Amino acid sequence: MSELEQLQQRYEDLRAQGLSLNLTRGKPGAEQLDLSDDLDGILEGNYESDDGGDTRNYGGIRGIPEIREIGGHILGLDSSNVIAAGNSSLQLMYYLVDQLVSQGLAGPPLRSKPSITAICPVPGYDRHFTLTDRLGIEMVNVSMTDDGPNMDEVEELVRNELSTSFMWCVPKHSNPTGCTYSPSTVDRIAALPAIRNEKPDAPFYVLWDNAYALHDFADATAELESINERGLVHGTQDRIVQFGSTSKMTFAGGGVAFLGGSDAILDGFEQYLSAATVGFDKVNQLRHARFFRDEAGLRAHMSNHARILKPKFEAVQQGLTRELGNRGIAKWTQPTGGYFVSLDVNSGLASKVVDLAQLAGLSLTPAGATFPYGNDPNDSNIRIAPTFATLEEVVAAIEILGVCVRLVAARDIES
Amino acid sequence: MSELEQLQQRYEDLRAQGLSLNLTRGKPGAEQLDLSDDLDGILEGNYESDDGGDTRNYGGIRGIPEIREIGGHILGLDSSNVIAAGNSSLQLMYYLVDQLVSQGLAGPPLRSKPSITAICPVPGYDRHFTLTDRLGIEMVNVSMTDDGPNMDEVEELVRNELSTSFMWCVPKHSNPTGCTYSPSTVDRIAALPAIRNEKPDAPFYVLWDNAYALHDFADATAELESINERGLVHGTQDRIVQFGSTSKMTFAGGGVAFLGGSDAILDGFEQYLSAATVGFDKVNQLRHARFFRDEAGLRAHMSNHARILKPKFEAVQQGLTRELGNRGIAKWTQPTGGYFVSLDVNSGLASKVVDLAQLAGLSLTPAGATFPYGNDPNDSNIRIAPTFATLEEVVAAIEILGVCVRLVAARDIES
Repeated sequence: MSELEQLQQRYEDLRAQGLSLNLTRGKPGAEQLDLSDDLDGILEGNYESDDGGDTRNYGGIRGIPEIREIGGHILGLDSSNVIAAGNSSLQLMYYLVDQLVSQGLAGPPLRSKPSITAICPVPGYDRHFTLTDRLGIEMVNVSMTDDGPNMDEVEELVRNELSTSFMWCVPKHSNPTGCTYSPSTVDRIAALPAIRNEKPDAPFYVLWDNAYALHDFADATAELESINERGLVHGTQDRIVQFGSTSKMTFAGGGVAFLGGSDAILDGFEQYLSAATVGFDKVNQLRHARFFRDEAGLRAHMSNHARILKPKFEAVQQGLTRELGNRGIAKWTQPTGGYFVSLDVNSGLASKVVDLAQLAGLSLTPAGATFPYGNDPNDSNIRIAPTFATLEEVVAAIEILGVCVRLVAARDIES
Repeated sequence: MSELEQLQQRYEDLRAQGLSLNLTRGKPGAEQLDLSDDLDGILEGNYESDDGGDTRNYGGIRGIPEIREIGGHILGLDSSNVIAAGNSSLQLMYYLVDQLVSQGLAGPPLRSKPSITAICPVPGYDRHFTLTDRLGIEMVNVSMTDDGPNMDEVEELVRNELSTSFMWCVPKHSNPTGCTYSPSTVDRIAALPAIRNEKPDAPFYVLWDNAYALHDFADATAELESINERGLVHGTQDRIVQFGSTSKMTFAGGGVAFLGGSDAILDGFEQYLSAATVGFDKVNQLRHARFFRDEAGLRAHMSNHARILKPKFEAVQQGLTRELGNRGIAKWTQPTGGYFVSLDVNSGLASKVVDLAQLAGLSLTPAGATFPYGNDPNDSNIRIAPTFATLEEVVAAIEILGVCVRLVAARDIES
């Protein structure tokens, strides 16, 4: 049998097993969620926050002090520069971008500009792109390197294209490549808004979605430089907005989200928020503060997540290496934290791999999903999300994925 | 001593007591909040919803089935016509109006119109007005009667002013008058969107904020006609959106909010929501469903609130009657539920009363707050919010208020 015939045979054997596997879901597995089951009931009838407030009642739009402390540990900010909100950091991003466009935030509203563009490092997080598109904003791609976004491309855009108004960043264990931005990249990003110092009507904002701030699963992981400190150095602190949440620490759908920024950012955002809500769920904020207690408690909790996640990510690496290593048909990232592995196959083949895998019972995130408008111009990126599946499922799924990549590549050479 | 001198003396005596009283806060008192303290811990480690979902994880943007059932009992809708959301119905209103303006909901976006106006029955709920103003929408007042908004005024506006695009309604125990819309008013409101049947580019929406749906404290209270049923009769069901929440049932800041409407409304709103959040806090939804259990549980719980609130509202009526009855200087509402009593003094005197009360240690909601732009054209309306204060405080506060009204009225006659 030729190699192609052998691969074809292996694929048919895998398909015949009638498996139903899924690597699309970037969410915690049940074993991870179990780590936080003590949240419900933790208050033991004591609903009073450190400032003496009754968390059960209305009010307090910036959140209770003790959970803002926790948010400060996550975002690397003083708690006075953190708003603790509801269960969704995406919701805060939606509000924030809407405010930038319609009302302005420590600057003029963007809608006074003839057109508005967002800089999107690719591959990236699909929900950033959907939100941006829905709010009527164009998107322009810049490529990702192992150090973060290609900053030469980004700086040229900010310098020469006044329509570019903000940039999405997932700076640590980026979604989906898993890279952590290098110190030099963080510094250059913090400096971006200063490029527009002479253009007060065309402010540029950095949206820093630090979704995986403490989500390391390897023993040695890169530290992320503080965007806040670099912003203060460059005098751009009023153009940098940070986001984070406990969604992938406690309950994915029932955690606490945070927005961090300068006093001017927080004052401006609170003004916006005050029309949209009386306040967020402080009872759940109190549960989280009592659950984590302090920074040490936060880190101890995250090491329990790491213990669960590490074997799954190791299985991805082992499986991909076994099937695809040194064949010149694919490359993939080796993250030390976060929720994803990013796989690149040869141009034009990603959607074929995804389709073939589906026929063999493996659901993969649609090719293109990691790009604005769902359009990967090279049709080469595939996002692997191994956290929700069991370890056994991850092993089986990666074998199918590897065989599909090899089969599609072999057919491509033949044709 | 003249009557004026006697009143002046009484006022000085009250002021000399150095009281600090507050009737501004339309929120539950601690005793009411205590009724729901079993919420925390009620799950006992079982986080699974009736549909087998894990409430701890992401997903399920319409909410879990069992809390949608509860929302259906509150709004008088089938649970399939209810979205259960986060802790804030105001947030749902903000999203909904933003969608009407920017993207449209089962119709064209309003921003394509030259101008957008909202019909606001007055006095009304200040947060409706703030939200509307923030989203760039003009407001036009219509007067309230004991049966609800003056429908002749409303129908004329909808018929003749194409800029009018929606109407705010608090149909039961209205904020602040406490009136419940009559069956004929509900029917005429449900018919309003049909006035625009021949104008598909100028749809008209009814925003039905049923915040006090089950919040009766008197034994016999008026039933509210179903806006949903009247909408189906008039074929306007895709122009009516209902809101409700458990904020004044369980924890004011930590409850569950609901949006109700036709299939087209829910499909359209879910499309909007899907860009702004992955989903709401289903863990808290599950707590609430387990806490209320069913409609009987819901009603039993609300009767416990009624027991606490009834004496406070009776104290308001007794105090106002004692000080102001049959004097021709003020009239006030006698609600059978809700959170407010609305007091009208003679034109031009409300802000003087509020200022005088403040000097005697009683904080009242600023005059004008119950009107769009904070502007009561007659300067006559004062909102009384007796729920948060203790019964003793309510008694003392109403005496001060009564004396202030009499003193201001007496001075007005003298001058």
